[in-house]
Order: sequence, then structure tokens, then C-alpha cells
Amino acid sequence: MNSTSDFSIKSWILVEKDSHFPIQNLPFGIFKTENLKARVGVAIGSKVLDLAALHDAGFLNHLNLEPTIFHTDYLNALIELGKEKANSIRNSIFHLLDAENKLLQNNTEFVKKNFYNQTDVQMLMPIKVGDYTDFYSSIEHATNVGIMFRDPANALLPNWKHLPVAYHGRASSIVVSGTPIVRPKGQTKTDDQSIPSFGPSKQLDFELELAFITYPGKPLGHSISTEEAMNYIFGMVLFNDWSARDIQKWEYIPLGPFLGKNFGSSISAWVVMMEALAPFQIEGPRQEPEVLPYLKYDGNYNYDIQLDVFLQPENGEKTKISSSNYKYMYWNLCQQLAHHTINGCNINAGDMMASGTISGPTPSSYGSMLELAWKGTKPISLNDGNTRKFIEDHDTISISGFAEKDGVRIGFGEVVGEIKPVID
Amino acid sequence: MNSTSDFSIKSWILVEKDSHFPIQNLPFGIFKTENLKARVGVAIGSKVLDLAALHDAGFLNHLNLEPTIFHTDYLNALIELGKEKANSIRNSIFHLLDAENKLLQNNTEFVKKNFYNQTDVQMLMPIKVGDYTDFYSSIEHATNVGIMFRDPANALLPNWKHLPVAYHGRASSIVVSGTPIVRPKGQTKTDDQSIPSFGPSKQLDFELELAFITYPGKPLGHSISTEEAMNYIFGMVLFNDWSARDIQKWEYIPLGPFLGKNFGSSISAWVVMMEALAPFQIEGPRQEPEVLPYLKYDGNYNYDIQLDVFLQPENGEKTKISSSNYKYMYWNLCQQLAHHTINGCNINAGDMMASGTISGPTPSSYGSMLELAWKGTKPISLNDGNTRKFIEDHDTISISGFAEKDGVRIGFGEVVGEIKPVID
Repeated sequence: MNSTSDFSIKSWILVEKDSHFPIQNLPFGIFKTENLKARVGVAIGSKVLDLAALHDAGFLNHLNLEPTIFHTDYLNALIELGKEKANSIRNSIFHLLDAENKLLQNNTEFVKKNFYNQTDVQMLMPIKVGDYTDFYSSIEHATNVGIMFRDPANALLPNWKHLPVAYHGRASSIVVSGTPIVRPKGQTKTDDQSIPSFGPSKQLDFELELAFITYPGKPLGHSISTEEAMNYIFGMVLFNDWSARDIQKWEYIPLGPFLGKNFGSSISAWVVMMEALAPFQIEGPRQEPEVLPYLKYDGNYNYDIQLDVFLQPENGEKTKISSSNYKYMYWNLCQQLAHHTINGCNINAGDMMASGTISGPTPSSYGSMLELAWKGTKPISLNDGNTRKFIEDHDTISISGFAEKDGVRIGFGEVVGEIKPVID
Repeated sequence: MNSTSDFSIKSWILVEKDSHFPIQNLPFGIFKTENLKARVGVAIGSKVLDLAALHDAGFLNHLNLEPTIFHTDYLNALIELGKEKANSIRNSIFHLLDAENKLLQNNTEFVKKNFYNQTDVQMLMPIKVGDYTDFYSSIEHATNVGIMFRDPANALLPNWKHLPVAYHGRASSIVVSGTPIVRPKGQTKTDDQSIPSFGPSKQLDFELELAFITYPGKPLGHSISTEEAMNYIFGMVLFNDWSARDIQKWEYIPLGPFLGKNFGSSISAWVVMMEALAPFQIEGPRQEPEVLPYLKYDGNYNYDIQLDVFLQPENGEKTKISSSNYKYMYWNLCQQLAHHTINGCNINAGDMMASGTISGPTPSSYGSMLELAWKGTKPISLNDGNTRKFIEDHDTISISGFAEKDGVRIGFGEVVGEIKPVID
């Protein structure tokens, strides 16, 4: 076991009981303040440690990093260093924050100046996303959609259990938690219309997902095997793949989702490294029929991560509308990456690959309004007495996610987004 | 008329009769030599003018550019400047290369040192592609595919004439002309197989396309109208969207093409600005049924650009296998960009949007092997007596493209790629 996964170790920084950010997590993000330009920070308890200041002060000199590595708008330069170096950075921070280590904690002047309250900083988009891919790897979600839109008796399409279905998405419109999302306009056509009409989407939805971020890959033409895959995955974020169901329905045949998806996707501000999530790896589902050799894997690559979705109307009360778990994935992230590169497709540092909507087996664990309200036939009841079939203007959707063991939570914080009315 | 489109003006640099690069073109690219690091160049006749040297020597001082603007690996910084500034750069170069202007031509020492033979330099990938979108805007191509794979009586899907269908593609695997492409491996399943098999693609194809590259756009949530669209388009390149038909066929339902496409796309090295192509704008097709208001446009946004495709086996003779034209597009680039942003999707400098396969009305003008050999039923005859249903290992596909008027050619050069065997 890596020492950073030793749950008996405590930090000298106070970490509240339900905090997502104990010393065993140490996720990276980009933050700024009124007086500080964008830079890399690490979350610990309710604080952010300024890594640029930590490095400038010489605490990481043994790592021989570039002086600018933490003075930057994105984590990409750090991720470019690769798995070994990224872990040596995380391990060094772990060591400096360990209650047993006096080096940093006794430097009261540095500590006073360079740990910020998370509530006092502005978190920025952590990654300059190169390419973004969205998988479709929850069997419950794919089955639900198949029942609703195709044939209940043959809900899963013939290829679904043979390969992790995926499509390319839009990287430019991925935004950090807190960024408002404007309701998209577009073409829609209901079954009883003969020609399409134009206007604001009437079926705006969220999708509960997690996304992983890649290290530098191999050259074009080479593949990454399931055995190698974890060496190419840096960390994960919560991912809300906002979707306009009515726009998507009319446009998506035959080339897939486009304007129904690319008006915005939201991610959590903190990127949790895979090493922090390792203690929560669990066995995946039995895959039947047997998969092709390049999709076989050894080990446990499902993760027990609790995911909760909340809807809050403008000035209203927050209602939990779904509780799901990343453990429900049929295809795991090693299989996803192996499949993505089996044809020689190259990946770069900072590419993002989302899971697809994570639905569980019970109706309360479905990962989208489409499924929760079953295509509008079973409106969701909110705590304030209102109901929802889809998302309304000024509704805020927030997703929180964490793993927990032995009283320690390793979490992502949350990803929050409010829907704003269309711009004319 | 912009003076850069005055076809009576000649350069003091020799431009051969059939050259794609007269003074009225002046496309930008990135090149290096054994002694020079990557930098921006402009093509003139059979030469490349080193713009970094031109700027360093003070010939562009009146433009107040950053010193590093041409000392760079990609054109993105130049494109970030926007349409007006990019045109002022092109206009200044035009003026310096005009035979009537002695300023540069009389500086024999500079001229001797900083014009390279195109055959002596290495052209590099010109753009760091942010997001890549592929449209499907040729009615002949969409109809041919519909006839082959669906219903000949209803070849076009219901949405096709209402919106320019498109999907997101992979930016990381777009490579510059001359880069070999490795045959992809993957899952395929023929109709008579009960389960998929795995191996090298047996149906490797090219797709004849042009792609445009965008200037910086508007913030997320805002749209670009058809009237505004040309202000957001920098220039164009030839685009070969390599496709593995057998992989695509098995994977693409319901979310669209993925591994069948993302193993590689090839572009020409020179980016031709829209101002150079303006003299070749022609009327587009009548669109019936009438399109929605946001897709209506005034003006001529089809372009008369001749496109030729050649196949050359290893050590063999080159055969022209298709002659098509960009004028056949049903949806023009202003409509494509307006559609892409109607939902508020944001674009950035250096995004690339490809046309989709450009097929003409006659069988000799089809833009893919799939159509030329009609799904393998009508093998293509090569000059050396061999035939092809799809592309074989060590075949080289080259696409050339140019517009011509009054004896002046404005061209892209070519995009070339050889298929290499799978890597085990």
C-alpha cells in the first residue's frame, strides 16, 4: 500500500469529519484570488494550499521542477510530466502536510500566508481539454434509453456488450463548476409535426457522469492495452453532460449527438488523482458474452464512489433527485482507454473521457431527468411541492461525489450549474 | 475588389503557369529546415518566404506585431489576431511581393537568404486544432450512402434537408500531408457473422473533403449568424478523412462514427485564406424545402474549387480516381457555422470544420472508394491494370485542389498519405 492511502495518517491542517479533502486525497485545481493570478492549488480540509508559493519557497526543490510549473492557467503542464513525476509531487505534499512532519507546519509565516479558505478563492477551469470523448458505459442507462426510444424487448443494441460505445464531444464548451449554462435554442420535431420548428429547448436535462483525464499517450498508430491503461490516467472529475433531449432526438440520426450536447458540459474544479481513489477499487460486473481479448483485464477497475444529484429552483429548496454510484459501470476505464486506442488513435495530456450517464438498478438511482421522470410520464416531486419533467430556467443542478472507508472520505466536492434563459 | 484579388498584378518572384501559389494566394504554413526551427512561412510560386525573418528584418514593423508571432510551431497566434489583422499581414506581404514594389526585391541579401525552395523545407502541421467537427453536407454523398446502406427510395434521412448534419471528430489524430497512416485494427461484424471478429480493417477508405479554420468566436451561449459567419472564418485546407468502413458499420449505432474515423485525418500544409478564394464564390443550390430563418443567407457561398484524387500503389503508377468540386455542397460554410453555434456552442481560433465527403453528380466525381467502387461491387481500374475495392497497404492517396480564373490558379497544393500495415 502506498503511504498516501494509509488512513491512519492525519494532517496538521484541520480536516472536518465529512470533508472530501483529507490528506489522503490532495486533489489539484487552478485558483485565483483578487490579488493572485491563476495558479495550481491543492485542497486540504477547507483550505487551498498555494503550490506556486510552496514551490517558490523551496519546499519542492528536490523534485527539480520548472519554476513556472505551478504558475499557470491549467494543470496540463503538470500532467505532461507523467504518472511518476505527478505522484512524486503529490507524495511530497502529503509528506509536508503529515502531522508527524514539522517542516512546513512550523513555518508559521508561510502557513499563515499561503493557505486560503476555499470559500475565499475563485476556482477556474483546471484543464485545457484537448479532445473530449463521452462513453455510454452504464448498462442500466443504455437499457432505459433503449426501452424508452426503441424496443423494450431488445433494449440494448447488438454492439453494446461487445464494445464500450462512445462518441466524440465538444471540448470548447466544457466549463468549471459554477459557470451558468444558457438554455440552447435549436431545431426540434415531434412525431406529430411534419416539419421542424425552432426555439428554446423544452427538454433540458443533466447527465450524471465521471470523467477521467489522461497523461501523455503513445504515438499515432500505437495502442494502449488494458494492462497499461492505468499508467495513462491522471485523475478524475465529476462531469455533468447537459443535454437537450428534443434537439438531440431530431438531429442525431445517423451521425450521433451534436447540438443536443455541445452547448455546455460542467466539471468539478478539483481533479482527484487515481492513487487517491485506489482504495475504493472493487470488482466489476461479469461480462457476458465474453469480450474480445483486447478488452479483457486483470484486477478491479470499478470504483465505489457515491454520487448524489440535487435540483434547486430559483430561491427554492434543494431536493436530492438521484443517488447513484460509479460502481455500476459495465465497462471500466481501462477497457474504455484500450478500446479508444485499439485502432491507433493517439491521446494527449489533458484529454477528457467521460463515463456516460451513470444509472443504477433502481429508479431512484437513475442519472438523468429523462430516466428519473421516465420521458416526462412520472414527474419528479420537489421538496417545495413543485414537480419537474425536465430542467427549468434558473434551476440549479448540483452533483456531489465521494468515496468513503474507515471514516475517511475521498471526494470531488461538487459540480454546480444554473440554467439561464436563452439569449435573443 | 480587394487589390489582392487583382489578377493582373504579378510578383517579382517567378510563378510558373500552373503554380497554385501566385501572389493572389499567399497561403500560410509552418515550416522548418535543417538549420531553422519551426516558423511561419508563406508560399509564393515554388518558394517559401520566411515570415519570421521578414518580420525580424523590420519589413512588417508598421503592423505592430509581437516579436514571436512568426517564430512559432502553429498559426494559432496569428489567427488569434482576428480577421482584420490577419488580412493586414497578408496585404503587407502582397505589397512587398508586388513586381511594382522595389523595397524587398532590391534587398538582394535578404532575398537570397530567406526564400527557400518548397522542395528543400519540411512542412509541419500548421494548426493546433482545438475542436474538430465533420459535416455531411454533400447531397450526392449522403444520397449514395443512403442508397447503399438503407433504402434507395428514401435515401436521405428526414432531417438532412432541414439542417447541416454534423458530428464531432478527433482533433489529436489530424496530421499534416506526408505523414503515413497506419491501418487501424478493430472490431467488425459482417451481416452473416453472429459475433464480431477482430483484426486489421479490410475496408480502408479515403474521404475527399475541404475544411475551414475559425477565428476566435463569441462567448459560450451566443450564436454566429449566417451574415456574420465569414468574419469568423480564417481559411481552408484540403482534408482527407480516412475511414475504416467495416469498423464504422459495427460501432456507429446509435452514437455515430468513432474508431472508424479517429485513427487519422490528413490536411494540406498550406492554409489558404478566404480572401484568396473570394473570386471563386458562386451561387449555391436551391434549397427545397425552405430552410428555417437562421439558416437563410444572402450572397454566394459556394466555391468553384476543382478537386482531384489519385491512388498510387507502392512503386506503381499514379491513377486519377476521382474529379470532384467543392461547388457541389448543398450546405455552405456560413450555414454550417451558423448551425454549429445556434445553440450557443462556442468556437475558438484554430477550430477545424470539415465539409464531409464532396461527391459530385457523376460516378467519376464521387469522393470516396465506397462510392467509386460502389460498396465493392464495381472495382476501380488502375492504370497499371490492377483494381481496387478499398485501399491496400502501401497505397498512397493524394488529393489536389485549386480554383482557376483568367489563367490564374489559387490552390492548396496537395494532401498526401501512404497507408502502412498494422503495428502488432
